[in-house]
Amino acid sequence: MIRIDEARIHDVIRQRGPASVALNGPDGMLPQVQAAASGVTREFGIPAYVLADTTWGSCDTNQAGAEALGAGVLFNIGHTIGMRELGGGYVVMVDAFDDIGFGRVAAECAKMLSGRTVSLLTDSQHLPQVGAVRDALEAGGVRVVVGAGGGQLNDAQVFGCEFYPAAKAAADGAEANVFMGQSSFHAAGVALSTGLPTYALDPYFGEVRDVTGLAQKMQRRAAAAIYAAADARTFGLIVGLKEGQLSRVTALRLRRELEAEGREVQLLAMSSITADRLESLTGIDAFVQVACPRISTDNPFRRPVLSVPQADALLRVMRGGEPGEFLRAPHWL
Amino acid sequence: MIRIDEARIHDVIRQRGPASVALNGPDGMLPQVQAAASGVTREFGIPAYVLADTTWGSCDTNQAGAEALGAGVLFNIGHTIGMRELGGGYVVMVDAFDDIGFGRVAAECAKMLSGRTVSLLTDSQHLPQVGAVRDALEAGGVRVVVGAGGGQLNDAQVFGCEFYPAAKAAADGAEANVFMGQSSFHAAGVALSTGLPTYALDPYFGEVRDVTGLAQKMQRRAAAAIYAAADARTFGLIVGLKEGQLSRVTALRLRRELEAEGREVQLLAMSSITADRLESLTGIDAFVQVACPRISTDNPFRRPVLSVPQADALLRVMRGGEPGEFLRAPHWL
Repeated sequence: MIRIDEARIHDVIRQRGPASVALNGPDGMLPQVQAAASGVTREFGIPAYVLADTTWGSCDTNQAGAEALGAGVLFNIGHTIGMRELGGGYVVMVDAFDDIGFGRVAAECAKMLSGRTVSLLTDSQHLPQVGAVRDALEAGGVRVVVGAGGGQLNDAQVFGCEFYPAAKAAADGAEANVFMGQSSFHAAGVALSTGLPTYALDPYFGEVRDVTGLAQKMQRRAAAAIYAAADARTFGLIVGLKEGQLSRVTALRLRRELEAEGREVQLLAMSSITADRLESLTGIDAFVQVACPRISTDNPFRRPVLSVPQADALLRVMRGGEPGEFLRAPHWL
Repeated sequence: MIRIDEARIHDVIRQRGPASVALNGPDGMLPQVQAAASGVTREFGIPAYVLADTTWGSCDTNQAGAEALGAGVLFNIGHTIGMRELGGGYVVMVDAFDDIGFGRVAAECAKMLSGRTVSLLTDSQHLPQVGAVRDALEAGGVRVVVGAGGGQLNDAQVFGCEFYPAAKAAADGAEANVFMGQSSFHAAGVALSTGLPTYALDPYFGEVRDVTGLAQKMQRRAAAAIYAAADARTFGLIVGLKEGQLSRVTALRLRRELEAEGREVQLLAMSSITADRLESLTGIDAFVQVACPRISTDNPFRRPVLSVPQADALLRVMRGGEPGEFLRAPHWL
């Protein structure tokens, strides 16, 4: 069960005394966020707005939405990061931890990987259980490396686009990744960023899932999109309008480099980059988006939509080279 | 063919000398907006971003998106309003007129409605042709009333939510509405706001379309949603996060009134209110949204999603009354 750190929310409200607040969290956690909002109104008698737009991470807190509402604080729930506040303290990052146990899947995993050296990783929701799973794996004869935090990440933690602990553990001799959690999205990212075999410990289905094949499929799709874009005459270069995805400098750098290769570039900007929204745009052979790398690796589009690492690989291909290991990086930006 | 007033765009750029600009327009006009953006870069050598998020009207210009990009001016295309600038001059409203002729459909309409008194109305794209269609109808024996502008609207103009000229013409004795344009969306709104038989002159299909039945169906669906919401225990009250849809005062008024009727109210906020986004929200029996009335009248939802006029009708029903002619109003806010 997901448990939101409501004590922290209430402490901040007591300290700051806002006239109203806003709360948001990942889609799957919205019922708990609604309950936390009701709790705030019950406890403090102030309006507590649930921001029901997506929040995909600390890059996408919807601070502008909370400010437009006049909320005194925005509580962004479920995206644990090293820094506990963003936006000069306006956005308070609140932990939401899942208390489901890994006992059975950890024991099964230990049997599979006994004698090997693995990197233990997880997403925000299972961080408090890294120690217990480490112990269980080691008790079963697995050597466990816990990669140190880096960027926005705590030790052992990964995001969809950021994998520093995975890179560090790989450098320290890990031969495989063990990702704690149900999210194939995160586990496949870990596999792609390290190039190592990767297993997800799914505590809900009670199974150890090898995601290496899924990652390889994503890698091949990402490479295919690069080659499909190589002959494009006109590129749409999309800047994301979410506060942490607004990489204008990268966009203008890629525009310059694509123009130097003789291509036309049209500048675009949008909040949510979906296949549906791109349909209305005509006269464009391929897109490059600088908003979020996972948009490109995880969604089907009719025309190629490249992320920044793919676009850099494309430029290498245009110049007669190889795309290279373009996703083998600790941060896909 | 849609013709954007590019001369105005270039004049404003010459006067203000921005380092970059942003442009947006309705989805159906995006190819022309893209061409206008390319024209700006060709003429002035500055970045011109096409904002490819939806812009449904002058309530939804995405000024925040343009500002986030650092654009010096936002050109919002295709939403002609009485005021030619918004946001303290930051948003420049640019006309986009469709030059397709109404000759044949106007003649056909004149035959159908000869001897009657009609209100002539249209959306932003066909405003320059009101005079010609008026002449054609009058030549065919139709009495034509052109309702005076009001609110944001020019003479004869309507939006999806605002219908002052229609109301004025009805008060001046119009027995039916004649809407110039293909948009059943606008024509049905005109029918609902006036309660008069309404005909759309579709210059593309070359037909006169009676939209009165469509409007009646929408009216019945809107009434059904009100009655379906009457037994709801818990309401989700949604504030829209688009700059012209942020009616917090109305939201808090409706919350107070619903609570006075013994209902629980959860405050929500979001940018785009879609059936899909609402699915993640649990423990809510019905929604009220204060963002845009057309969201409620034009989309299917699993749970009732009431607009402001519907919510006010609901309160009348809760208090033992009738819903009343809740859409018979010149502005649905």
